[in-house]
Order: sequence, then structure tokens, then C-alpha cells
Amino acid sequence: MTFPGIGGLFAQRPDTAVVLSQLAETLLRGDSSPLSRGERELIAAYVSHLNDTAFCAASHSAFAAAQLEGGAELVAAVLADAGSAGIGPLMRALLDVAAEVQAQAAPVSDGAIAAARAAGATDDHIHDTVLIAAAFAMFNRYVSGLATGLPSDASFYETAAGLIVERGYEAAR
Amino acid sequence: MTFPGIGGLFAQRPDTAVVLSQLAETLLRGDSSPLSRGERELIAAYVSHLNDTAFCAASHSAFAAAQLEGGAELVAAVLADAGSAGIGPLMRALLDVAAEVQAQAAPVSDGAIAAARAAGATDDHIHDTVLIAAAFAMFNRYVSGLATGLPSDASFYETAAGLIVERGYEAAR
Repeated sequence: MTFPGIGGLFAQRPDTAVVLSQLAETLLRGDSSPLSRGERELIAAYVSHLNDTAFCAASHSAFAAAQLEGGAELVAAVLADAGSAGIGPLMRALLDVAAEVQAQAAPVSDGAIAAARAAGATDDHIHDTVLIAAAFAMFNRYVSGLATGLPSDASFYETAAGLIVERGYEAAR
Repeated sequence: MTFPGIGGLFAQRPDTAVVLSQLAETLLRGDSSPLSRGERELIAAYVSHLNDTAFCAASHSAFAAAQLEGGAELVAAVLADAGSAGIGPLMRALLDVAAEVQAQAAPVSDGAIAAARAAGATDDHIHDTVLIAAAFAMFNRYVSGLATGLPSDASFYETAAGLIVERGYEAAR
């Protein structure tokens, strides 16, 4: 049996699966971030959507929806048009920062940093946004580059969300 | 004092430094890969060069040079023109795979996979090349996105290479 998405790669190479799961756990669920788990999953979903990596976009959309008050409707609105979605000015500015990081390895523009600062971003907000966006440049390339399959049943993502929210990335691996 | 490159980010955020160092150690120095440590560092240097991230390109060029028979001259030749550099057909084909992963999150082309297979690539060669290239899409965006500084003294990279080759990424952090 072949697991869909990153699961197949994790089964094939346990050595890298361990460290990639630890990275996801630290970035998306660790205690040092000023961003909530739902907000961090929203950045992950948004970047995966911009990278056109369907498996990661659907997975992290489900994980964000399970942990944000607006649920799946809000997440879908952000992916469709972050500029008009019902999120606050800080999250909107951080998604703009994430989009710049998604596009290329280059300094985030002064304008995007200034907008984030004006909306209340601290150094840690900007650090975490840049590193999560950068990490999904990796996860998306890994999953898309090796042409992994999609789950045959769309309930896969909700089941995965339940596991991740309850137990985290390392236990769920 | 601010450390250049990724060192400043590691000092600022020890929580993510730990997992990023473990990832680098596993990918670039772990025992599961069919690629030598020098070959893996060469892929990291090549992708960092394509992403125009000077700190990572110089660092991993030094780490590759310290562990490849051709030394700094060979590494510089690969970065200048991988097609004409004095590397074997397998490494040349894997660098082409890495360049595709660097460019975008999309399946590696059938042509690049076929060329790698014809040159002797196994599943693990292709897996490791894709994941290393993807990881440097992350490391490069992290280092460039947050506009980290370069070391004032070029001997920095050789000193770092000595530490990494002898002690590894986790001990050297």
C-alpha cells in the first residue's frame, strides 16, 4: 500500500521522516511563537496553495480550519483572496510577507515589513512567518517534486486534522 | 554581537535552531544516503548558488570542497557551469534534478528522471537529491528573507568547514 502525500515519503525514508516531523511540530505547534496554531497552519495552507501543491494545501487548510474560529469557510476565503477575507490587519500583512518568501529567496521588501510592523508585528511574528513560508517552500517541493498521490477519499484530510490537533506531528507520523 | 548568516537566526531562536540543525545533519551527513557527504554538500552549494543566497552558497561550497577530491576548484567549476565541470554523469544528472526542484514545486520532469536512471540513480539517489534541493529552498529563503549579514572575513567559511566536517551540524551550532 502506498500512503498519499508526504506519508508515502515518510514510510519510505524513516530517517528523514523523524526530523521533518520534528520541524513541523516545532514550527506549527511549538510554544515559542506569538502566532496561534491555527494562524500558523493558515500561513502553511496559504503558501502551499500559492505553490500549487494540492496535498499540502488541503491538509493544512483542514488543520487550520480545525483550529480557527472561522473554520473551513474562513480558510477557503483566505486562499481565494487573502485581501478581502475576514482576517485582521496583522494576519493580512503576515500573509503578504509569506507570499514574498514563497516567490523567491530574497529579502522581504521594506514595504511588507513596514506594513507588518504597523499592524503590530514583533520580530518573532516576522521570524515565524518567514520560516514557516520557507519551510513550505521545502515541504511543497518534496511532495510535488516526487509526484506523490492524492488520497482517494476527501475525508482523509479531516481524519488527519483530528490526529494532528490532538496528538501533534510526531505522534501522528 | 550579531553572527553572520544563519548563525544570527540560530542565536535569536534556539527552538527552531535545534530542529533545523538536526535536519541539516540528517540530510547532509546521515548514514542512509547513497551520496557521499561531499556530493550532498555540492548539491546544497549548487542550489544555494541558483537561489543567489551568497552566505549559504559560500558555506556549502567550503563544506563540499573540504570533502571532495577536486576541492574548491571543482566546486567553483560546478557553480560556474555544471554541464562542463569535471564530475561524473550521475552527479551531473542529479544536479539537473536539483535545479528543477529549485525552480518550482512541481514534479521533476520525466526527462530528468530518465537521465538520472540511465546514469545509475536509485530511488534513494533521487529522493535525497529532491529533498536536499527542497531543504535549500527553505534554508536559502530563511537566510535571504531575513536579510542576514555576511561575515566580514572570508576565512569564516573555511573555519566553519573545519568544524562541520569534524563535528557535524548539531555540535557546531
